[in-house]
Amino acid sequence: MPKPELLEKFPNPYADRDYEIYMETDEFTSLCPLGGVETDAIELKLLEGGAPDFATIRITYTPDVHCVELKSLKLYFWSFRNDGIFYERVVNRILDDLVEAVSPRALTVVGDFKVRGGLKSIITAKYVKGQ
Amino acid sequence: MPKPELLEKFPNPYADRDYEIYMETDEFTSLCPLGGVETDAIELKLLEGGAPDFATIRITYTPDVHCVELKSLKLYFWSFRNDGIFYERVVNRILDDLVEAVSPRALTVVGDFKVRGGLKSIITAKYVKGQ
Amino acid sequence: MPKPELLEKFPNPYADRDYEIYMETDEFTSLCPLGGVETDAIELKLLEGGAPDFATIRITYTPDVHCVELKSLKLYFWSFRNDGIFYERVVNRILDDLVEAVSPRALTVVGDFKVRGGLKSIITAKYVKGQ
Amino acid sequence: MPKPELLEKFPNPYADRDYEIYMETDEFTSLCPLGGVETDAIELKLLEGGAPDFATIRITYTPDVHCVELKSLKLYFWSFRNDGIFYERVVNRILDDLVEAVSPRALTVVGDFKVRGGLKSIITAKYVKGQ
Amino acid sequence: MPKPELLEKFPNPYADRDYEIYMETDEFTSLCPLGGVETDAIELKLLEGGAPDFATIRITYTPDVHCVELKSLKLYFWSFRNDGIFYERVVNRILDDLVEAVSPRALTVVGDFKVRGGLKSIITAKYVKGQ
Amino acid sequence: MPKPELLEKFPNPYADRDYEIYMETDEFTSLCPLGGVETDAIELKLLEGGAPDFATIRITYTPDVHCVELKSLKLYFWSFRNDGIFYERVVNRILDDLVEAVSPRALTVVGDFKVRGGLKSIITAKYVKGQ
Amino acid sequence: MPKPELLEKFPNPYADRDYEIYMETDEFTSLCPLGGVETDAIELKLLEGGAPDFATIRITYTPDVHCVELKSLKLYFWSFRNDGIFYERVVNRILDDLVEAVSPRALTVVGDFKVRGGLKSIITAKYVKGQ
Amino acid sequence: MPKPELLEKFPNPYADRDYEIYMETDEFTSLCPLGGVETDAIELKLLEGGAPDFATIRITYTPDVHCVELKSLKLYFWSFRNDGIFYERVVNRILDDLVEAVSPRALTVVGDFKVRGGLKSIITAKYVKGQ
Amino acid sequence: MPKPELLEKFPNPYADRDYEIYMETDEFTSLCPLGGVETDAIELKLLEGGAPDFATIRITYTPDVHCVELKSLKLYFWSFRNDGIFYERVVNRILDDLVEAVSPRALTVVGDFKVRGGLKSIITAKYVKGQ
Amino acid sequence: MPKPELLEKFPNPYADRDYEIYMETDEFTSLCPLGGVETDAIELKLLEGGAPDFATIRITYTPDVHCVELKSLKLYFWSFRNDGIFYERVVNRILDDLVEAVSPRALTVVGDFKVRGGLKSIITAKYVKGQ
Repeated sequence: MPKPELLEKFPNPYADRDYEIYMETDEFTSLCPLGGVETDAIELKLLEGGAPDFATIRITYTPDVHCVELKSLKLYFWSFRNDGIFYERVVNRILDDLVEAVSPRALTVVGDFKVRGGLKSIITAKYVKGQ
Repeated sequence: MPKPELLEKFPNPYADRDYEIYMETDEFTSLCPLGGVETDAIELKLLEGGAPDFATIRITYTPDVHCVELKSLKLYFWSFRNDGIFYERVVNRILDDLVEAVSPRALTVVGDFKVRGGLKSIITAKYVKGQ
Repeated sequence: MPKPELLEKFPNPYADRDYEIYMETDEFTSLCPLGGVETDAIELKLLEGGAPDFATIRITYTPDVHCVELKSLKLYFWSFRNDGIFYERVVNRILDDLVEAVSPRALTVVGDFKVRGGLKSIITAKYVKGQ
Repeated sequence: MPKPELLEKFPNPYADRDYEIYMETDEFTSLCPLGGVETDAIELKLLEGGAPDFATIRITYTPDVHCVELKSLKLYFWSFRNDGIFYERVVNRILDDLVEAVSPRALTVVGDFKVRGGLKSIITAKYVKGQ
Repeated sequence: MPKPELLEKFPNPYADRDYEIYMETDEFTSLCPLGGVETDAIELKLLEGGAPDFATIRITYTPDVHCVELKSLKLYFWSFRNDGIFYERVVNRILDDLVEAVSPRALTVVGDFKVRGGLKSIITAKYVKGQ
Repeated sequence: MPKPELLEKFPNPYADRDYEIYMETDEFTSLCPLGGVETDAIELKLLEGGAPDFATIRITYTPDVHCVELKSLKLYFWSFRNDGIFYERVVNRILDDLVEAVSPRALTVVGDFKVRGGLKSIITAKYVKGQ
Repeated sequence: MPKPELLEKFPNPYADRDYEIYMETDEFTSLCPLGGVETDAIELKLLEGGAPDFATIRITYTPDVHCVELKSLKLYFWSFRNDGIFYERVVNRILDDLVEAVSPRALTVVGDFKVRGGLKSIITAKYVKGQ
Repeated sequence: MPKPELLEKFPNPYADRDYEIYMETDEFTSLCPLGGVETDAIELKLLEGGAPDFATIRITYTPDVHCVELKSLKLYFWSFRNDGIFYERVVNRILDDLVEAVSPRALTVVGDFKVRGGLKSIITAKYVKGQ
Repeated sequence: MPKPELLEKFPNPYADRDYEIYMETDEFTSLCPLGGVETDAIELKLLEGGAPDFATIRITYTPDVHCVELKSLKLYFWSFRNDGIFYERVVNRILDDLVEAVSPRALTVVGDFKVRGGLKSIITAKYVKGQ
Repeated sequence: MPKPELLEKFPNPYADRDYEIYMETDEFTSLCPLGGVETDAIELKLLEGGAPDFATIRITYTPDVHCVELKSLKLYFWSFRNDGIFYERVVNRILDDLVEAVSPRALTVVGDFKVRGGLKSIITAKYVKGQ
């Protein structure tokens, strides 16, 4: 299961100005929900052939009081590795977890998933503080 | 014949926000209408040389209460495989079937068909809830 | 001579919505007018060296009550093959013939002709119903 | 099922010299074997979700006494459309059927299949008369 | 000297609508003015080393009552071949001559000249009827 | 540690007009903060494996009374070489140091960092005098 | 030293209309100021290793009463060859000299300098008559 | 008419070694022979519409005692400008004239002519001293 | 004048093995010989408009006992800046000066000169020790 | 100073066959030798402006009994960071250190260094066991 508790923050050293941080990984991987049901019973999924998904995740945010620590973000992404989860939830979950962790002024999350069954998917979700 | 009953939905886990889902397949195939008449008599068509069509289908939608389950969408696309159907109907039919299945807030369907008789066709249809 | 009577139509199966159809061929060919005079005396032209022209034709339209049948469009394009005709007339003639045949809500025709005498030509004509 | 009887030939008009013919289609489609078993029970396969495969087929041959008639080759390729068949068999079957049909001096068949489960496959088989 | 009298026109067969004609040649050539003075004494120029210029000319116009006949435009371009003329005049002269010849509704002429002395030049002039 | 005292300025020779200066280096390097703590104890960092970071820095500014001397900017960039510093601070620090050094009318600093742990980061900060 | 007196003009043959002239050279070269001080003592600079700079210069202008003669512009650019001059001054100097020489309706000068010390610089200055 | 007397030579400053010189122009132009007959009556040709040809000429040679002076080569190329001459003769004539002028150890001339009547031509001729 | 005395060498630290060093500059510039005569009277040339040449120089060598010091090579290239010299001599002179300076086991020099009078030149010279 | 003692090895698991390993980093950096003299006095170099060098290092080897441990190679590359060293030595030193560390059957090292003073350098050294 995604572990948002892995996300670490540090004080934004320049919180008095708006500036933009873009982060991208093309090494995101999770698993298909098993039988259409999301689960985190790893061994079960592996035995039953839950297919791995691969995606590029793109994050753009304007920090407020805190920034996301980069290495902790990497570990947080790794925590999806054996998780059976829908694409829609991946993107929105990352949005929610980052809002919870560092309460940014604005945030966009894009999940660009590789072809599965001949189908390619791209999902985009946005957050703006106070809206 | 296209089988919209194959389309499955699941509750949009983040229905309180607008976000966008893009899906694309370059493995769509159907058949030409026989003598200009749409039909689903498969064996007849094959015997008489009903030519196969190939297309890339691009779908963009903003989910409302439900999302389309990806694997069911693949199966739904497969159900056009032996269907004799005009390009115009392919695109609009997918639009209607998806609106019926998951009632999205907005939806665009593009069918980008391979060259036939030296002619390339691209067809685009859109839907916005409440318009 | 172009034979618009070749153009066939079929009822637009989704006439209650606006959607766009794009068609393109890079296999259009006609002949130069003979001595600057348009003619359809084929044998004469061939004997006297009427030079062939080659073009890509691009058509975009929003169907109203009827759609153009694709194979008939191909045959219609073929009917220009031995016609001595100016570029300007090719594009506008296709525009007029398609308006006559299927009375679309909107239509754009582009003729992108190959180099002749070191000169390349691209001609664009548009139609909007009611304007 | 593949129908080699669709393949037609015509006399090679220049049989006294070696020359090479290359033909390619990116519109080849067949079905996965059902449960790992090859079958041609179409309705069964569709009901049970036999997945479609898509490939580019590339053929190079040196004709001997006969050439393959191009339109008949297209119809022959279409006859794989609803066949449950392994990749390896697709390529070797085409090789065998063409050897049987036109007895070329040499022949190479390449099947370049689209990604399935993240895996891309390319299969190549060759024939040389008298070897 | 440029010979605008070479430009021939023919009645715009579709003068009741606005449509756009684009023409381009990459085979335009003229000569440098001799000692900075424009002249059409050919032999003089060649003896004294008047350097040839090469350009791509791009013309876009909306015809009114008449169209430019394409072959006559080619001959008109050829008439610059041995003319000593500044770049600025080439472009504006073509603009004026075409306005004079066919009185278009709108016209743009671009002259894209090859490097001379390490310098590349592109000159653009426009005309709109009634402005 | 970054040494802003290295930055030299010279009088803007054309201070009466607004004009734009863009500078870019793809040779910026610094070190990771050690254990998430920024430090400038070089030997310590190297012994403990403080990983080097690499970035392209892009600067766009409108000078006011002074311009940045280019060679001094290079030396200033070099002074980050053995500094343990977060990405966010790199970009904002350069912004602040340049504002302090030459007080420009406007300034944008972009830090485009190479992949670390599978994550790519781009950080953008802006300054406008009087805002 | 730059020699603006080399710039020659000729009467704009089409001064009654606005049209645009673009000129570009990738063969511009000057020298670094010596010890940060601009100078034109050539031999001194060469002996002391004043480094050469290389740039592409891009000029766009709308002529008013006069045009710049192209060959004279080339000679004017050559006059920077052994001049010790800052980038900022190069671009603004060209702007001023061209305004002085031909008083255009509008003018933009871009200097795109090659990498020095790992740093690339692009400088842009503009002029509009009457502003 | 081509004027080989324009070709100037200078002593090869390094005649004791073999080295290679490559020269290329994309600004070569001549005229079509008039009615299939080569001529140099310029005015006649222009009146009767002798069509201009355009080519890229590529020359590679190993100098012996002399080198070709570059500016004189340019003037020699210009002397084809109003010459009515076949493609084959252009290339072989340049070969012969250069052999006559500088007697190289080896020489290759390539003429790469622009499309005429939809046909592109490339002609190559070679010379090796003593063969 | 080229100053080969600027070339510095240092002991090849790995002279017991053959290895290859490639060096390239796209910032080489010299002047045309004045009236076809090579000279180093700088002021004279500038006053009389001796045109600058620009080239990319490519050097590949296998060092023997010594290597070329890179900065000294740069200064050596700079010493051609105000020299009136033919292309052929530039390339062969660099070859000779490098052979004299560091006596390599093998050496190739390529001079790739920018277009002059519509003509591009590339000159290649080679040296192998003991041949 | 480079620290070859950082290089670690592990037993080649398939030493009975020849296979090739390619490794590349575009994050290699070292310093220029100070005044042409190689040194490892870091603070001295930084104070005196020893310029940083940047390179892409490409290594290809056929392992014999041992392979290079990848992370240790990274640390070994980092140990050049504050070393004043010539390009030629960088490449040959890496070659020697790797031969010493894992005694490969064959090894090629390429150092592709960024432009310095307008000069780009690529150095290639090779080793084959028993030659």
